[in-house]
Amino acid sequence: MSFTANIFNSHSKKDGDFLLAITKVLGFKPKKLPIYRKAFLHRSVNQKDKQGNPMNYERLEFLGDAMLGTIISKHLYNEVPGGDEGYLTKMRSKIVSRKHLNELGKDLNLIDFVESRIPKSHFGDNIHGNVFEALVGAIYLDRGYKYCEKFIRERVIEPYVDIEQLEGQVMSYKSLLIEWCQKQKKEFSYNVYEDSGNDPVKHFAVKLSIDGKVMAKARATSKKKAEEKASKRAFFALQGKIKGDS
Amino acid sequence: MSFTANIFNSHSKKDGDFLLAITKVLGFKPKKLPIYRKAFLHRSVNQKDKQGNPMNYERLEFLGDAMLGTIISKHLYNEVPGGDEGYLTKMRSKIVSRKHLNELGKDLNLIDFVESRIPKSHFGDNIHGNVFEALVGAIYLDRGYKYCEKFIRERVIEPYVDIEQLEGQVMSYKSLLIEWCQKQKKEFSYNVYEDSGNDPVKHFAVKLSIDGKVMAKARATSKKKAEEKASKRAFFALQGKIKGDS
Repeated sequence: MSFTANIFNSHSKKDGDFLLAITKVLGFKPKKLPIYRKAFLHRSVNQKDKQGNPMNYERLEFLGDAMLGTIISKHLYNEVPGGDEGYLTKMRSKIVSRKHLNELGKDLNLIDFVESRIPKSHFGDNIHGNVFEALVGAIYLDRGYKYCEKFIRERVIEPYVDIEQLEGQVMSYKSLLIEWCQKQKKEFSYNVYEDSGNDPVKHFAVKLSIDGKVMAKARATSKKKAEEKASKRAFFALQGKIKGDS
Repeated sequence: MSFTANIFNSHSKKDGDFLLAITKVLGFKPKKLPIYRKAFLHRSVNQKDKQGNPMNYERLEFLGDAMLGTIISKHLYNEVPGGDEGYLTKMRSKIVSRKHLNELGKDLNLIDFVESRIPKSHFGDNIHGNVFEALVGAIYLDRGYKYCEKFIRERVIEPYVDIEQLEGQVMSYKSLLIEWCQKQKKEFSYNVYEDSGNDPVKHFAVKLSIDGKVMAKARATSKKKAEEKASKRAFFALQGKIKGDS
Protein backbone atom coordinates (compact mmCIF):
# COMPACT_ATOMS: atom_id res chain seq x y z
CA MET A 1 0.00 0.00 0.00
CA SER A 2 1.23 3.42 -0.82
CA PHE A 3 0.53 6.74 0.76
CA THR A 4 -0.96 7.94 -2.48
CA ALA A 5 -3.22 4.97 -3.02
CA ASN A 6 -6.82 5.94 -3.63
CA ILE A 7 -6.06 9.56 -2.97
CA PHE A 8 -6.83 10.65 -6.50
CA ASN A 9 -9.26 8.37 -8.14
CA SER A 10 -11.61 11.00 -9.45
CA HIS A 11 -11.40 14.54 -10.63
CA SER A 12 -13.59 15.56 -7.73
CA LYS A 13 -10.80 14.85 -5.26
CA LYS A 14 -9.82 17.99 -3.53
CA ASP A 15 -6.80 19.98 -4.69
CA GLY A 16 -5.50 19.87 -1.13
CA ASP A 17 -5.13 16.09 -1.16
CA PHE A 18 -3.55 16.12 -4.58
CA LEU A 19 -1.19 18.93 -3.60
CA LEU A 20 -0.04 17.02 -0.55
CA ALA A 21 0.59 13.80 -2.44
CA ILE A 22 2.27 15.37 -5.47
CA THR A 23 4.50 17.53 -3.26
CA LYS A 24 5.76 14.36 -1.61
CA VAL A 25 6.62 12.89 -5.02
CA LEU A 26 8.22 16.08 -6.32
CA GLY A 27 10.23 17.00 -3.26
CA PHE A 28 9.13 20.63 -3.69
CA LYS A 29 5.93 22.62 -3.89
CA PRO A 30 4.32 23.02 -7.30
CA LYS A 31 3.20 26.49 -8.30
CA LYS A 32 0.58 25.74 -10.94
CA LEU A 33 -1.30 22.67 -9.81
CA PRO A 34 -3.47 22.27 -12.96
CA ILE A 35 -0.37 21.47 -15.02
CA TYR A 36 0.28 18.47 -12.77
CA ARG A 37 -3.36 17.40 -12.99
CA LYS A 38 -2.93 17.35 -16.75
CA ALA A 39 0.15 15.14 -16.44
CA PHE A 40 -2.13 12.34 -15.20
CA LEU A 41 -5.12 12.85 -17.47
CA HIS A 42 -5.62 9.88 -19.76
CA ARG A 43 -7.08 10.55 -23.21
CA SER A 44 -10.07 8.34 -22.40
CA VAL A 45 -11.35 11.11 -20.11
CA ASN A 46 -11.84 13.15 -23.29
CA GLN A 47 -11.36 16.49 -21.61
CA LYS A 48 -10.99 19.74 -23.59
CA ASP A 49 -9.60 23.11 -22.61
CA LYS A 50 -11.46 26.41 -23.11
CA GLN A 51 -10.24 26.62 -26.71
CA GLY A 52 -11.54 23.14 -27.43
CA ASN A 53 -8.10 21.51 -27.54
CA PRO A 54 -7.92 17.95 -26.20
CA MET A 55 -6.41 17.81 -22.73
CA ASN A 56 -4.36 14.80 -21.70
CA TYR A 57 -0.84 13.89 -20.68
CA GLU A 58 0.48 13.08 -24.15
CA ARG A 59 1.80 16.53 -25.02
CA LEU A 60 3.52 16.81 -21.63
CA GLU A 61 5.02 13.37 -22.21
CA PHE A 62 6.55 14.67 -25.46
CA LEU A 63 8.09 17.58 -23.56
CA GLY A 64 9.27 15.52 -20.59
CA ASP A 65 10.86 12.91 -22.82
CA ALA A 66 13.02 15.59 -24.45
CA MET A 67 14.02 17.20 -21.15
CA LEU A 68 14.83 13.86 -19.55
CA GLY A 69 17.12 13.03 -22.48
CA THR A 70 18.92 16.35 -22.13
CA ILE A 71 19.59 16.07 -18.41
CA ILE A 72 20.77 12.48 -18.74
CA SER A 73 23.00 13.53 -21.66
CA LYS A 74 24.63 16.21 -19.55
CA HIS A 75 25.14 13.79 -16.67
CA LEU A 76 26.80 11.25 -18.95
CA TYR A 77 28.91 13.93 -20.62
CA ASN A 78 30.31 14.96 -17.26
CA GLU A 79 30.60 11.49 -15.72
CA VAL A 80 32.24 9.68 -18.61
CA PRO A 81 34.85 12.01 -20.11
CA GLY A 82 36.34 9.14 -22.11
CA GLY A 83 33.10 8.03 -23.77
CA ASP A 84 32.61 8.96 -27.40
CA GLU A 85 29.34 10.02 -28.99
CA GLY A 86 28.33 6.42 -29.76
CA TYR A 87 28.97 5.30 -26.19
CA LEU A 88 27.03 8.24 -24.74
CA THR A 89 24.09 7.56 -27.05
CA LYS A 90 24.02 3.88 -26.07
CA MET A 91 24.19 4.61 -22.35
CA ARG A 92 21.48 7.23 -22.57
CA SER A 93 19.13 4.88 -24.34
CA LYS A 94 19.71 2.28 -21.62
CA ILE A 95 18.85 4.81 -18.92
CA VAL A 96 15.74 6.17 -20.58
CA SER A 97 14.56 2.78 -21.86
CA ARG A 98 10.85 2.07 -21.64
CA LYS A 99 11.52 -0.71 -19.14
CA HIS A 100 13.53 1.57 -16.91
CA LEU A 101 11.02 4.42 -17.00
CA ASN A 102 8.17 2.04 -16.23
CA GLU A 103 10.07 0.83 -13.19
CA LEU A 104 10.57 4.43 -12.06
CA GLY A 105 6.91 5.33 -12.50
CA LYS A 106 5.86 2.18 -10.65
CA ASP A 107 8.13 2.84 -7.69
CA LEU A 108 6.52 6.25 -7.31
CA ASN A 109 3.01 4.77 -7.63
CA LEU A 110 2.20 7.41 -10.19
CA ILE A 111 -0.67 5.33 -11.53
CA ASP A 112 -2.62 6.24 -8.41
CA PHE A 113 -2.83 9.79 -9.76
CA VAL A 114 -4.07 8.76 -13.19
CA GLU A 115 -7.57 9.81 -14.17
CA SER A 116 -9.08 7.55 -16.77
CA ARG A 117 -12.34 6.04 -17.97
CA ILE A 118 -10.57 2.76 -18.61
CA PRO A 119 -10.02 0.55 -15.55
CA LYS A 120 -6.42 0.84 -14.49
CA SER A 121 -6.00 -2.90 -14.57
CA HIS A 122 -6.46 -2.70 -18.35
CA PHE A 123 -3.42 -0.54 -18.86
CA GLY A 124 -0.19 -2.07 -20.05
CA ASP A 125 3.09 -1.43 -18.31
CA ASN A 126 3.93 1.64 -20.38
CA ILE A 127 1.47 3.86 -18.58
CA HIS A 128 3.98 4.07 -15.70
CA GLY A 129 6.80 5.42 -17.84
CA ASN A 130 4.51 7.65 -19.86
CA VAL A 131 3.14 9.52 -16.88
CA PHE A 132 6.63 9.74 -15.41
CA GLU A 133 7.72 11.59 -18.55
CA ALA A 134 4.59 13.74 -18.45
CA LEU A 135 5.42 14.64 -14.87
CA VAL A 136 8.89 15.81 -15.97
CA GLY A 137 7.19 17.92 -18.66
CA ALA A 138 4.89 19.44 -16.06
CA ILE A 139 7.82 20.37 -13.82
CA TYR A 140 9.58 21.97 -16.78
CA LEU A 141 6.57 24.17 -17.55
CA ASP A 142 5.79 24.96 -13.93
CA ARG A 143 9.23 25.52 -12.41
CA GLY A 144 11.67 25.55 -15.29
CA TYR A 145 14.93 23.84 -16.04
CA LYS A 146 16.56 23.96 -12.60
CA TYR A 147 13.77 22.10 -10.83
CA CYS A 148 13.63 19.57 -13.62
CA GLU A 149 17.31 18.89 -13.21
CA LYS A 150 16.94 18.57 -9.43
CA PHE A 151 14.00 16.18 -9.79
CA ILE A 152 15.77 14.01 -12.36
CA ARG A 153 18.90 13.98 -10.26
CA GLU A 154 16.99 12.84 -7.17
CA ARG A 155 14.55 10.50 -8.89
CA VAL A 156 16.50 9.01 -11.76
CA ILE A 157 20.22 9.58 -11.57
CA GLU A 158 20.91 9.15 -7.88
CA PRO A 159 18.72 6.10 -7.32
CA TYR A 160 19.05 4.33 -10.67
CA VAL A 161 22.07 5.33 -12.67
CA ASP A 162 25.08 3.20 -11.91
CA ILE A 163 27.28 3.47 -14.96
CA GLU A 164 29.42 0.45 -14.17
CA GLN A 165 26.36 -1.70 -13.72
CA LEU A 166 24.80 -0.36 -16.92
CA GLU A 167 27.98 -1.23 -18.72
CA GLY A 168 27.74 -4.73 -17.36
CA GLN A 169 31.17 -4.39 -15.77
CA VAL A 170 29.83 -5.13 -12.32
CA MET A 171 27.51 -7.99 -11.62
CA SER A 172 24.73 -7.08 -9.26
CA TYR A 173 24.97 -8.40 -5.71
CA LYS A 174 21.32 -9.30 -5.90
CA SER A 175 21.93 -11.71 -8.76
CA LEU A 176 25.00 -13.16 -7.04
CA LEU A 177 22.97 -13.77 -3.91
CA ILE A 178 20.01 -15.27 -5.74
CA GLU A 179 22.32 -17.60 -7.63
CA TRP A 180 23.91 -18.77 -4.40
CA CYS A 181 20.55 -19.31 -2.69
CA GLN A 182 19.28 -21.34 -5.62
CA LYS A 183 22.40 -23.49 -5.67
CA GLN A 184 22.14 -24.04 -1.92
CA LYS A 185 18.40 -24.68 -2.14
CA LYS A 186 17.78 -21.90 0.34
CA GLU A 187 14.61 -19.84 0.36
CA PHE A 188 15.00 -16.11 0.14
CA SER A 189 12.68 -13.14 0.10
CA TYR A 190 12.97 -9.40 -0.32
CA ASN A 191 10.40 -7.39 1.58
CA VAL A 192 10.26 -3.85 0.30
CA TYR A 193 8.06 -1.22 1.84
CA GLU A 194 7.81 2.51 1.58
CA ASP A 195 9.65 4.24 4.32
CA SER A 196 7.48 6.45 6.47
CA GLY A 197 10.39 8.73 7.30
CA ASN A 198 10.15 12.45 6.79
CA ASP A 199 12.90 12.77 4.17
CA PRO A 200 12.26 15.31 1.47
CA VAL A 201 12.83 12.45 -1.00
CA LYS A 202 10.80 9.28 -0.58
CA HIS A 203 12.82 6.29 0.62
CA PHE A 204 12.32 2.57 0.39
CA ALA A 205 13.34 0.08 3.04
CA VAL A 206 14.00 -3.56 2.43
CA LYS A 207 14.46 -6.67 4.54
CA LEU A 208 16.26 -9.58 2.98
CA SER A 209 15.48 -12.93 4.57
CA ILE A 210 17.15 -16.26 3.87
CA ASP A 211 15.43 -19.36 5.15
CA GLY A 212 13.13 -17.15 7.20
CA LYS A 213 15.95 -15.36 8.97
CA VAL A 214 16.50 -11.62 8.37
CA MET A 215 20.00 -11.38 6.90
CA ALA A 216 20.18 -7.68 6.05
CA LYS A 217 18.25 -4.45 5.97
CA ALA A 218 18.79 -1.40 3.81
CA ARG A 219 17.25 1.94 2.89
CA ALA A 220 17.55 3.82 -0.38
CA THR A 221 15.73 6.16 -2.74
CA SER A 222 14.62 3.36 -5.05
CA LYS A 223 13.44 -0.20 -4.55
CA LYS A 224 16.16 -1.49 -6.81
CA LYS A 225 18.88 0.31 -4.93
CA ALA A 226 17.56 -0.76 -1.53
CA GLU A 227 17.51 -4.40 -2.67
CA GLU A 228 21.00 -4.10 -4.06
CA LYS A 229 22.29 -2.55 -0.85
CA ALA A 230 20.71 -5.26 1.30
CA SER A 231 22.09 -7.95 -1.04
CA LYS A 232 25.57 -6.47 -0.79
CA ARG A 233 25.38 -6.50 3.02
CA ALA A 234 24.14 -10.08 3.08
CA PHE A 235 26.78 -11.02 0.53
CA PHE A 236 29.60 -9.75 2.72
CA ALA A 237 28.05 -11.31 5.83
CA LEU A 238 27.87 -14.62 4.01
CA GLN A 239 31.11 -14.21 2.11
CA GLY A 240 32.96 -16.96 3.90
CA LYS A 241 30.13 -19.37 3.13
CA ILE A 242 29.67 -18.24 -0.45
CA LYS A 243 33.37 -18.50 -1.24
CA GLY A 244 33.61 -21.81 0.56
CA ASP A 245 30.93 -23.25 -1.66
CA SER A 246 32.37 -22.21 -4.95
CA MET B 1 33.16 36.96 -47.66
CA SER B 2 32.40 36.83 -44.00
CA PHE B 3 33.84 38.70 -41.08
CA THR B 4 35.07 35.43 -39.62
CA ALA B 5 36.76 34.19 -42.77
CA ASN B 6 40.34 33.17 -42.23
CA ILE B 7 40.29 34.36 -38.68
CA PHE B 8 40.70 30.90 -37.21
CA ASN B 9 42.48 28.61 -39.56
CA SER B 10 45.02 27.30 -37.11
CA HIS B 11 45.19 26.58 -33.44
CA SER B 12 47.89 29.20 -33.13
CA LYS B 13 45.41 31.97 -33.78
CA LYS B 14 45.16 34.16 -30.76
CA ASP B 15 42.37 33.74 -28.26
CA GLY B 16 41.56 37.42 -28.67
CA ASP B 17 40.61 37.00 -32.33
CA PHE B 18 38.61 33.89 -31.61
CA LEU B 19 36.86 35.57 -28.67
CA LEU B 20 35.86 38.51 -30.82
CA ALA B 21 34.49 36.37 -33.64
CA ILE B 22 32.67 33.86 -31.43
CA THR B 23 31.12 36.63 -29.32
CA LYS B 24 29.61 38.06 -32.49
CA VAL B 25 28.09 34.68 -33.33
CA LEU B 26 26.84 34.03 -29.80
CA GLY B 27 25.43 37.44 -29.05
CA PHE B 28 27.02 37.29 -25.58
CA LYS B 29 30.43 36.82 -24.04
CA PRO B 30 31.61 33.29 -23.39
CA LYS B 31 33.10 32.55 -19.99
CA LYS B 32 35.18 29.47 -20.71
CA LEU B 33 36.71 29.92 -24.14
CA PRO B 34 38.34 26.44 -24.38
CA ILE B 35 34.90 24.80 -24.46
CA TYR B 36 34.11 26.76 -27.62
CA ARG B 37 37.46 25.83 -29.14
CA LYS B 38 36.52 22.21 -28.59
CA ALA B 39 33.21 22.74 -30.40
CA PHE B 40 35.17 23.26 -33.63
CA LEU B 41 37.85 20.63 -33.22
CA HIS B 42 37.58 17.95 -35.87
CA ARG B 43 38.62 14.41 -34.93
CA SER B 44 41.32 14.47 -37.63
CA VAL B 45 43.31 16.85 -35.41
CA ASN B 46 43.68 13.91 -33.03
CA GLN B 47 43.97 16.03 -29.92
CA LYS B 48 43.83 14.54 -26.40
CA ASP B 49 43.13 16.11 -23.03
CA LYS B 50 45.38 15.73 -19.98
CA GLN B 51 43.74 12.41 -19.11
CA GLY B 52 44.38 11.09 -22.59
CA ASN B 53 40.74 11.33 -23.69
CA PRO B 54 40.19 12.24 -27.35
CA MET B 55 39.15 15.85 -27.76
CA ASN B 56 36.84 16.82 -30.61
CA TYR B 57 33.40 18.27 -31.15
CA GLU B 58 31.50 14.99 -31.28
CA ARG B 59 30.63 14.76 -27.59
CA LEU B 60 29.46 18.38 -27.57
CA GLU B 61 27.38 17.64 -30.64
CA PHE B 62 25.64 14.84 -28.70
CA LEU B 63 24.85 17.29 -25.91
CA GLY B 64 23.77 20.14 -28.18
CA ASP B 65 21.50 17.89 -30.21
CA ALA B 66 19.59 16.96 -27.04
CA MET B 67 19.31 20.53 -25.82
CA LEU B 68 18.22 21.83 -29.19
CA GLY B 69 15.45 19.21 -29.28
CA THR B 70 14.26 20.25 -25.83
CA ILE B 71 14.08 23.97 -26.54
CA ILE B 72 12.30 23.39 -29.86
CA SER B 73 9.89 21.01 -28.11
CA LYS B 74 9.00 23.65 -25.56
CA HIS B 75 8.53 26.27 -28.25
CA LEU B 76 6.18 23.98 -30.21
CA TYR B 77 4.32 23.00 -27.05
CA ASN B 78 3.57 26.64 -26.33
CA GLU B 79 2.95 27.77 -29.90
CA VAL B 80 0.67 24.97 -31.03
CA PRO B 81 -1.73 24.18 -28.18
CA GLY B 82 -3.91 22.11 -30.50
CA GLY B 83 -1.15 19.85 -31.80
CA ASP B 84 -1.01 16.33 -30.44
CA GLU B 85 2.15 14.37 -29.63
CA GLY B 86 2.45 13.03 -33.19
CA TYR B 87 2.14 16.49 -34.71
CA LEU B 88 4.70 17.98 -32.30
CA THR B 89 7.16 15.18 -33.04
CA LYS B 90 6.79 15.66 -36.79
CA MET B 91 7.23 19.43 -36.60
CA ARG B 92 10.27 19.10 -34.36
CA SER B 93 11.96 16.73 -36.73
CA LYS B 94 11.36 19.17 -39.59
CA ILE B 95 12.97 21.99 -37.62
CA VAL B 96 16.00 20.03 -36.46
CA SER B 97 16.44 18.19 -39.76
CA ARG B 98 19.99 17.74 -40.99
CA LYS B 99 19.24 19.95 -44.00
CA HIS B 100 17.93 22.74 -41.80
CA LEU B 101 20.82 22.59 -39.35
CA ASN B 102 23.34 22.61 -42.18
CA GLU B 103 21.71 25.76 -43.52
CA LEU B 104 21.94 27.36 -40.08
CA GLY B 105 25.59 26.48 -39.64
CA LYS B 106 26.39 27.74 -43.13
CA ASP B 107 24.68 31.08 -42.60
CA LEU B 108 26.84 31.62 -39.53
CA ASN B 109 30.00 30.58 -41.43
CA LEU B 110 30.85 28.24 -38.58
CA ILE B 111 33.14 26.26 -40.82
CA ASP B 112 35.62 29.12 -40.62
CA PHE B 113 36.20 28.18 -36.99
CA VAL B 114 36.77 24.50 -37.68
CA GLU B 115 40.23 23.11 -37.00
CA SER B 116 41.00 20.06 -39.06
CA ARG B 117 43.79 18.20 -40.82
CA ILE B 118 41.45 17.45 -43.69
CA PRO B 119 40.98 20.26 -46.21
CA LYS B 120 37.64 21.91 -45.57
CA SER B 121 36.65 21.44 -49.17
CA HIS B 122 36.63 17.68 -48.51
CA PHE B 123 33.92 17.92 -45.90
CA GLY B 124 30.35 17.09 -46.80
CA ASP B 125 27.47 19.37 -45.97
CA ASN B 126 26.86 17.84 -42.56
CA ILE B 127 29.85 19.51 -40.97
CA HIS B 128 27.84 22.73 -40.83
CA GLY B 129 24.99 21.24 -38.82
CA ASN B 130 27.31 19.15 -36.66
CA VAL B 131 29.34 22.11 -35.43
CA PHE B 132 26.17 24.12 -34.96
CA GLU B 133 24.95 21.43 -32.54
CA ALA B 134 28.36 21.29 -30.88
CA LEU B 135 28.19 25.05 -30.38
CA VAL B 136 24.83 24.65 -28.61
CA GLY B 137 26.44 22.00 -26.39
CA ALA B 138 29.30 24.36 -25.59
CA ILE B 139 26.88 27.13 -24.59
CA TYR B 140 25.00 24.70 -22.38
CA LEU B 141 28.18 23.74 -20.52
CA ASP B 142 29.57 27.26 -20.36
CA ARG B 143 26.52 29.35 -19.55
CA GLY B 144 23.72 26.91 -18.77
CA TYR B 145 20.17 26.48 -19.91
CA LYS B 146 19.07 30.13 -20.05
CA TYR B 147 21.74 31.20 -22.51
CA CYS B 148 21.10 28.13 -24.63
CA GLU B 149 17.46 29.03 -24.82
CA LYS B 150 18.27 32.64 -25.73
CA PHE B 151 20.73 31.55 -28.43
CA ILE B 152 18.31 29.04 -29.95
CA ARG B 153 15.52 31.59 -29.86
CA GLU B 154 17.65 34.18 -31.67
CA ARG B 155 19.43 31.82 -34.05
CA VAL B 156 16.91 29.14 -34.84
CA ILE B 157 13.37 29.99 -33.79
CA GLU B 158 13.15 33.65 -34.64
CA PRO B 159 14.88 33.50 -38.02
CA TYR B 160 13.82 30.05 -39.22
CA VAL B 161 10.75 28.68 -37.54
CA ASP B 162 7.57 29.63 -39.32
CA ILE B 163 5.06 27.01 -38.33
CA GLU B 164 2.59 27.74 -41.11
CA GLN B 165 5.32 27.43 -43.69
CA LEU B 166 6.62 24.24 -42.12
CA GLU B 167 3.13 22.84 -42.28
CA GLY B 168 3.02 23.69 -45.94
CA GLN B 169 -0.08 25.81 -45.40
CA VAL B 170 1.60 28.88 -46.81
CA MET B 171 3.56 28.79 -50.02
CA SER B 172 6.74 30.78 -49.84
CA TYR B 173 6.79 34.10 -51.69
CA LYS B 174 10.21 33.21 -52.99
CA SER B 175 8.87 30.16 -54.82
CA LEU B 176 5.88 32.13 -56.13
CA LEU B 177 8.20 34.78 -57.48
CA ILE B 178 10.63 32.33 -59.03
CA GLU B 179 7.77 30.50 -60.71
CA TRP B 180 6.46 33.75 -62.18
CA CYS B 181 9.91 34.82 -63.42
CA GLN B 182 10.46 31.47 -65.09
CA LYS B 183 7.09 31.59 -66.77
CA GLN B 184 7.76 35.14 -67.98
CA LYS B 185 11.31 34.26 -69.02
CA LYS B 186 12.66 36.98 -66.78
CA GLU B 187 16.08 36.81 -65.16
CA PHE B 188 16.22 37.18 -61.42
CA SER B 189 18.92 37.18 -58.78
CA TYR B 190 19.14 37.36 -55.03
CA ASN B 191 22.21 39.09 -53.69
CA VAL B 192 22.70 38.29 -50.05
CA TYR B 193 25.46 39.82 -47.97
CA GLU B 194 26.22 40.03 -44.32
CA ASP B 195 25.05 43.22 -42.80
CA SER B 196 27.80 45.29 -41.26
CA GLY B 197 25.37 46.85 -38.74
CA ASN B 198 26.14 46.78 -35.06
CA ASP B 199 23.16 44.70 -33.99
CA PRO B 200 23.80 42.26 -31.16
CA VAL B 201 22.45 39.58 -33.54
CA LYS B 202 24.02 39.26 -36.97
CA HIS B 203 21.75 40.38 -39.83
CA PHE B 204 21.67 39.60 -43.50
CA ALA B 205 20.65 41.99 -46.21
CA VAL B 206 19.35 41.01 -49.61
CA LYS B 207 18.71 42.74 -52.92
CA LEU B 208 16.32 41.06 -55.32
CA SER B 209 16.78 42.04 -58.95
CA ILE B 210 14.57 41.14 -61.87
CA ASP B 211 15.96 41.68 -65.33
CA GLY B 212 18.80 43.64 -63.80
CA LYS B 213 16.54 46.06 -61.96
CA VAL B 214 16.48 46.08 -58.15
CA MET B 215 12.90 45.20 -57.20
CA ALA B 216 13.16 44.92 -53.43
CA LYS B 217 15.53 44.99 -50.51
CA ALA B 218 15.18 43.38 -47.09
CA ARG B 219 17.05 42.70 -43.90
CA ALA B 220 16.60 39.81 -41.47
CA THR B 221 18.42 37.53 -39.06
CA SER B 222 18.78 34.73 -41.57
CA LYS B 223 19.48 34.57 -45.29
CA LYS B 224 16.32 32.59 -45.86
CA LYS B 225 14.16 35.09 -44.04
CA ALA B 226 15.75 38.08 -45.79
CA GLU B 227 15.12 36.45 -49.18
CA GLU B 228 11.55 35.67 -48.23
CA LYS B 229 10.96 39.23 -47.05
CA ALA B 230 12.37 40.70 -50.25
CA SER B 231 10.31 38.27 -52.33
CA LYS B 232 7.16 39.26 -50.49
CA ARG B 233 7.85 42.94 -51.15
CA ALA B 234 8.53 42.32 -54.80
CA PHE B 235 5.46 40.09 -55.01
CA PHE B 236 3.18 42.84 -53.77
CA ALA B 237 4.85 45.42 -55.97
CA LEU B 238 4.31 43.14 -58.96
CA GLN B 239 0.96 41.83 -57.84
CA GLY B 240 -1.05 43.46 -60.60
CA LYS B 241 1.26 41.95 -63.17
CA ILE B 242 1.43 38.54 -61.55
CA LYS B 243 -2.35 38.27 -61.21
CA GLY B 244 -2.87 39.59 -64.71
CA ASP B 245 -0.73 36.80 -66.07
CA SER B 246 -2.38 33.92 -64.36
